[in-house]
Amino acid sequence: MSTLRKDPLSHGWVIYTDEEYQKPEAPARVVNMPAGGCLYCEKNESMTLPEVAAYRQGGLKNGPGWTVRAVPNAHAVLHIEGKTNRRGEGLYDMMNGIGAHEVIVETPDHSALLHLSSVEKIAEILHMLRDRMNDLMRDPRFRYMQIFRNYGDVAGAVHPHPHSQIIALPIVPRWVYEEINHAQEYWKIKERCVFCDILAQDSDGPRMVYENEGFVALTPFASKFPFETWVYPKEHLNSYHLATDESLLVLADAVKSVLTLLATALEDPPYNLIIHSSPAQPEKRYNTPTAKLNDYYHWHIEIIPRATKVAGFEYGTGFYINSVLPEKAAEILRGQLTPPG
Amino acid sequence: MSTLRKDPLSHGWVIYTDEEYQKPEAPARVVNMPAGGCLYCEKNESMTLPEVAAYRQGGLKNGPGWTVRAVPNAHAVLHIEGKTNRRGEGLYDMMNGIGAHEVIVETPDHSALLHLSSVEKIAEILHMLRDRMNDLMRDPRFRYMQIFRNYGDVAGAVHPHPHSQIIALPIVPRWVYEEINHAQEYWKIKERCVFCDILAQDSDGPRMVYENEGFVALTPFASKFPFETWVYPKEHLNSYHLATDESLLVLADAVKSVLTLLATALEDPPYNLIIHSSPAQPEKRYNTPTAKLNDYYHWHIEIIPRATKVAGFEYGTGFYINSVLPEKAAEILRGQLTPPG
Repeated sequence: MSTLRKDPLSHGWVIYTDEEYQKPEAPARVVNMPAGGCLYCEKNESMTLPEVAAYRQGGLKNGPGWTVRAVPNAHAVLHIEGKTNRRGEGLYDMMNGIGAHEVIVETPDHSALLHLSSVEKIAEILHMLRDRMNDLMRDPRFRYMQIFRNYGDVAGAVHPHPHSQIIALPIVPRWVYEEINHAQEYWKIKERCVFCDILAQDSDGPRMVYENEGFVALTPFASKFPFETWVYPKEHLNSYHLATDESLLVLADAVKSVLTLLATALEDPPYNLIIHSSPAQPEKRYNTPTAKLNDYYHWHIEIIPRATKVAGFEYGTGFYINSVLPEKAAEILRGQLTPPG
Repeated sequence: MSTLRKDPLSHGWVIYTDEEYQKPEAPARVVNMPAGGCLYCEKNESMTLPEVAAYRQGGLKNGPGWTVRAVPNAHAVLHIEGKTNRRGEGLYDMMNGIGAHEVIVETPDHSALLHLSSVEKIAEILHMLRDRMNDLMRDPRFRYMQIFRNYGDVAGAVHPHPHSQIIALPIVPRWVYEEINHAQEYWKIKERCVFCDILAQDSDGPRMVYENEGFVALTPFASKFPFETWVYPKEHLNSYHLATDESLLVLADAVKSVLTLLATALEDPPYNLIIHSSPAQPEKRYNTPTAKLNDYYHWHIEIIPRATKVAGFEYGTGFYINSVLPEKAAEILRGQLTPPG
């Protein structure tokens, strides 16, 4: 018997079948060097647009010596100059593609793998992502800062050099917006954060994947994809840009651990890693007379292994079919923690 | 300059970039015969579960002689027996996987291509889909009948024999539900159907792809995917199951025409074809004191060519990036109507 589950955050339903799970066809790791050299490697800094930020152990701006480097994406989908100019066209709405699109080059090492990097190195990358988010939050045109990491060709990575991206958007993405709305509805009834309630219900339960002193990794009750895993801060906090340096070190341990479990269980799967966090300027539209955004929203990381072929009709319905129950996925992931025996 | 557009139906935003569009890597057509024979071919009727319906020119039930045949999907994601048993688990909601999942075998001809079939043959398939929908609507456990057609491996087709599918669901899929909600909101303000307004604004405009006496095909103002094309009945009607035999013949012409334009322009792309229609039992939850579901909702077909690699962060955000403006897509599709010269 298959089962339907409702995601308390998106309010979408997912069908769980009992088909056999298939591992990804090929591991994600690609270490080949692009023809003409890699624009994100050290000494090739002139191949990128001028950097917007870098952590350096030496050297000059736009030269070698950096450990993490943020540059504008040369193929940016949004551009920084101009006004959004919201306008209509008959019954339709549109605006200019104003925003920012940056690449965070995570390391000079072309063939580094994130999950094999040290906790300190991962914390340094998380630090840069937080700093860039903080900087972009100051621009009043931007409503949402979307941080994401595509790993592997199948997951949409167009460049093999280890990197993350941040897109500053003039609107809040639809699914973040819905998550916020549903968290607000939950608060109205319970006067509690739905994410905190999820942590209370699922910590130490069958969907638990990993826990350290500051973070919990869970497979969601209604995960859309097999082995989808979310990482939540235990302490209620609405936005990633407010995370402290100390907490980023603890987060780095959680991220390294979850990615290592996924890499072991699924043999280096391609994945998308996405941070869901508060929109900018909450006082304008997300604070209500009885609750501030920070009361009811709780930032988190969603890691979606791209291990299954995307099925057909999800695109037209928003209805997902998943062949791996989250309890089974969590059990398999936890099983990688200790050698079998 | 890229542009952002808001879909008036989903309320999702799409970024239009000016990247170069890439055609699909390989055409969708696959005519190979599965090892062990094809379970959907004539004379192999015993390889499927017993048929639930068939149009026949002769022969006995579950034997040869049929032209269209509906059978339960042997790998059904939902099953017909039992009660839905909605229940909670702490803060979560779940129910049993009750529903129906049927395969509509469109023709005995293993290598037929839908867009090359006659208008009468396509009408016969549409007729069966409508009849199966009508039959399933009678089961009070089912809230929504999702009709879809996956064409090509990339689009999720697991079998090369021409077929469509219908899934009877105990819930309304998220995106259909949102479309209904947004159409209802629009009605509250305008007292008009938003789909009818779209047809009024876009017919004869730059997003027009094809028109006949009963149907209009348009690329949506905020299409999520390149060359996405929707087919709407001109006459306001909320549900596909109410379509008349005469209108199905006119619809068959529109479907054949649009699929032919797509096959020519994109060299036989894989695609998903999805019918969005009214949920069952509207009096229970979709009729309001001032408007019935049939006032504000309008059934339609969405055809989504799977011609681009699925990009990364859409999964976590519901935010789409599309490199082909719908006006450009419509122009290219219209250009296939007459030979270049």
